[in-house]
Amino acid sequence: MTVEQLSEEDRKSWLSALPQWSLCRDGDAIERKFEFADFSEAFAFMTRVALIAETRDHHPEWSNVYNRVEITLTTHDAGGLSLRDVKMARKIDALLG
Amino acid sequence: MTVEQLSEEDRKSWLSALPQWSLCRDGDAIERKFEFADFSEAFAFMTRVALIAETRDHHPEWSNVYNRVEITLTTHDAGGLSLRDVKMARKIDALLG
Repeated sequence: MTVEQLSEEDRKSWLSALPQWSLCRDGDAIERKFEFADFSEAFAFMTRVALIAETRDHHPEWSNVYNRVEITLTTHDAGGLSLRDVKMARKIDALLG
Repeated sequence: MTVEQLSEEDRKSWLSALPQWSLCRDGDAIERKFEFADFSEAFAFMTRVALIAETRDHHPEWSNVYNRVEITLTTHDAGGLSLRDVKMARKIDALLG
């Protein structure tokens, strides 16, 4: 499957709808930091993200330290950001209500 | 609860029994990198580690990218490595048979 990298213009427009995500890696990825009450809540969230990732076959780069989770999204097949990352970010945001 | 940092001598002796873990952070932590067949297997492993972590109330610093997992263990209360990290590393290793 070919995945197209977002154009500069599309990137701006899509990302304006994801105010809690920041561009990183020279604009080739987006990241968001999450904080929960404790490890149990953080890992419960990660489990839900894992299910979304597996369903969409689009996997995050992420780390966890106790109650904190950092997620980075990029599309290796596109060599940068694609619409898949934007959609995934929206799905993740939706978990938090 | 007071947690004692491992002495230099104890560290050497305990770590010799954990050949797949390396010292990092100037000897204040140990880390191991794991590789699985795919994301599903990697996250299944993470879930088992999460259960151990919660049971022992000792949580890893860790990251995941698709089929790879990196785990760092340190004891903040001890300001470095403690026996809790050694025991946790053994429990994690035991998951892999």
